[in-house]
This record gives sequence, structure tokens and C-alpha cells, in this order.
Amino acid sequence: MTLYFIGLGLWDEKDISVKGLEVVRRCDYVYLDHYTSFLNCDIKDLERVYGKEIKLANRDLVEKKAEAIIERAKVSKVAFLVVGDPFAATTHIDLMLRARKEDVKIKIVHNASILSAIGFLGLELYKYGKVTSIPFENKNIKTPYEVYLNNKEKELHTLFLLDLDLENKKFMTVNDGVKFLIDCGLEKDTLCVGVGGVGSDEPEIKIGKAKEIIKRVFVKYPQCFIIPSNMHFMEEEVLGLWK
Amino acid sequence: MTLYFIGLGLWDEKDISVKGLEVVRRCDYVYLDHYTSFLNCDIKDLERVYGKEIKLANRDLVEKKAEAIIERAKVSKVAFLVVGDPFAATTHIDLMLRARKEDVKIKIVHNASILSAIGFLGLELYKYGKVTSIPFENKNIKTPYEVYLNNKEKELHTLFLLDLDLENKKFMTVNDGVKFLIDCGLEKDTLCVGVGGVGSDEPEIKIGKAKEIIKRVFVKYPQCFIIPSNMHFMEEEVLGLWK
Repeated sequence: MTLYFIGLGLWDEKDISVKGLEVVRRCDYVYLDHYTSFLNCDIKDLERVYGKEIKLANRDLVEKKAEAIIERAKVSKVAFLVVGDPFAATTHIDLMLRARKEDVKIKIVHNASILSAIGFLGLELYKYGKVTSIPFENKNIKTPYEVYLNNKEKELHTLFLLDLDLENKKFMTVNDGVKFLIDCGLEKDTLCVGVGGVGSDEPEIKIGKAKEIIKRVFVKYPQCFIIPSNMHFMEEEVLGLWK
Repeated sequence: MTLYFIGLGLWDEKDISVKGLEVVRRCDYVYLDHYTSFLNCDIKDLERVYGKEIKLANRDLVEKKAEAIIERAKVSKVAFLVVGDPFAATTHIDLMLRARKEDVKIKIVHNASILSAIGFLGLELYKYGKVTSIPFENKNIKTPYEVYLNNKEKELHTLFLLDLDLENKKFMTVNDGVKFLIDCGLEKDTLCVGVGGVGSDEPEIKIGKAKEIIKRVFVKYPQCFIIPSNMHFMEEEVLGLWK
């Protein structure tokens, strides 16, 4: 039969597409990637709107027990739900690869990803370099800072995604992320754009020097932030809108 | 009141999100960007699903007569519909900027963009360089080829979008696009990935040397193609899926 990868978009149970919703309702089994991101609603809200029981798939299930999902998809319709767009990150490419190797049919229902949604800030998307994530366990870790330095050298903007721990409902803040970079050596006067709740009715956007941003309050999650590289005047003008 | 920018996603009238649909149905006026891209359905299908009359906004209306849209948004709820994600390209940033300057409230409903959806091919999104579009009127134009050369030098993949003329229902093919690059000087043995109908149930994906791709048949639109730069073995493996 078929393994459907269905993007859920960025904010809540109503960000699924009309098509995605129709597909989920026709599926026999519904899994939700429950470790790379999250929506601002309860699993119960999803189950109510989708009219299906949802099995939460943690990293362990998806990475190590993909076989179970694939076996089911051989004989039934299986939906694998992913917050954002299913393949904006390569996390789930492996599941698709394995399923294809076992001749399971794949169908994809796309949705918004933070990687393109962030375009609303006005910084040109093609001028973003490599995206990096800041993990909670970050002692002796320098990778995000190195990615930033590398992008900066190429005059590219850097988008920083922030860690989350769904089991313990812990979400990293912009403040924590920028502090981490300062500890790595980030110049405190560096311009940062902190963002909370992209996809919500009113995303929070705060712009300032690193040393200021670490004190600003963001209340919506998930959060992320950008360190812009050299900006075109049009980019500067649009960014100015959010000040 | 409010100007809503609503993404329609990539394929047809059912790619709008449940939230987007609710918003459109509550709006007093509904405009559709009718020049940067299109869906594989009739405007009548959109009107039927959305339950609203849709005003087609061509480039002229949006760029030169934005004032009219903004004036309406001052006193009523106006939806501005955009195929894909509203701000994945900067085309509509100017309309947002103008509206904000006139104190019109802005709300955004995101959706899938080709820029993140293309991730399903398995090439890492952060390794894409600047995106470029190949225009119909391309005599003496070298920009897309130069963008490619520049990306190549930085070891970045290049995504080529292809021109369209909605009024005359003309859509550029992968064949035409790759031929144009060969005329600019592209080495005929360069690996190209042609794609038709991203967002459809079964996108067409064809991989081969430039000289082969210009002979392959693609029937779905819109089409686009990628010239990959150096690939990680995982990227090569996933790309191999589509052969």
C-alpha cells in the first residue's frame, strides 16, 4: 500500500492542508514524529480534528524501528505526520529511503517549513547559509558558532534553530541560544533577530545587539534567531518594520 | 482591518491549509497573485472550494496599484492569495511593507514553497545556493548561467525555476531551460535533475546529463530543474532512488 509523509505546518492543528487532512482521515495508521518539533496544541486536538488515533513516534521508534512502520505500510495506508514540511530537514529521508527499497509506495503532502516561512522577515532566503541547531547539552560544543563564522565569511545569514525536549516539555529560548554563542566568542554587539511563534497569528520579532537580545522576553515557542550578514538596503528596510 | 497573506501551496485547490481556508471564507475581498505561479486547477475550482469570488491580480495591479488593495484593507478584511508560501520570494515583500507603513494589520498564513519542498529529492537544502529563474525572453541574457557558475564555485546546488506566461498559458519546460544553459556554455555532460509537478501525487523526476535531459519528456507543470554540486554519499544514494 502506501506510506504518506504529511507536513503539518508550523503552529497548530489547523495548519494541515485540506488535502493532508483528507489523506489522514483515509489512513489505517497514523504516526506523528514527536521529537524534531511540535505544534502549539495538544495531541488530543490533533486527534479530534483528524478523527484518528495518533501514535507518537519518538526518535528511537523512527530511527531504530522503522521496519515496523514499513511493514505496516506494505499492507495498509500509513500516515507519518511531520511538523513543518516532511523533508525540509533530512531526518526522515532515511525512512523514505528504506521504504522505497522495500517497494512501499511513497506519497508526500507538503506544508510550510520554518526554512521558507522565515522569508517573511524580509531577508532573502537564498542568502541564508547552512542552518544550525543549538543543543541543550552544549558544553565543549562549538559547531553552531563555527557554522555562523563560516556563513559570515561567505556573507550569508545564519538561522539558528533551538533544541527541545518534548518528553520533559523543555524548549530552548532565544536568550539561552544567544548566550551560548556569546560564551563561544560571539561579539556582544552583533545584530541578532529573535523570533518566537512563526506561523502564529502574531509572531514575536525582536531585533537588537546580542547583549540586548539576551534580556528581551519571548513567550511563544518554538523560538529561533537569525544573525544577518551584510544586508541589501531593501532587506534592511523590511527588517526595520519589526523594530 | 487586516491584509491576510495566504499561501496556497503547490498543486491544487486542496493545498490550502484548514486555517487558510477559514480565513479566506471570512474575508470581504479575495485577490489572487496571478503572475508569479499557478495551481493545477481552474480559478472556478478555487472559488468553489473557498466560497468566494476571486479577483485576479496581475503584476501591474500588485506592483502599481497596491494602493487600491491597501485602501480596501484599511476598512475590510482582504485576502491576498499566493501560490506556494507568500514570502518565499521577495515579490510580495513590497506590498507588505507599504501596507505596514499605512498601519494596515498584516497576518500571514504560511504554506509549502518549492524552496523547501524540493528537499524531498534528498539534496540538503542548506547546500542550495542562489535560486535563479530562466525567462522566456532570454536572448543576450546570461544571468541564470552566471548564478550557476557562481554557486558551482562555492560547491552549492542550483535550483532553476522556469518562466510562465499565465495570460497565454505558456510554461517553460525543463528541456527548454537546459537547452538555454547549453547555449550559454553549459558542459553537455553536466548532471541535471529535472522535476515536474512537485506537490502532485506523483512528481516526475528525471536524472541525467544535460544532453540527455533535453530529450526526456515531462508532462506536469510547473517544472524546474537542479544542477547538483558535489554530493555527500547520502545525497547521491537518495537521488539514486529517483532514477
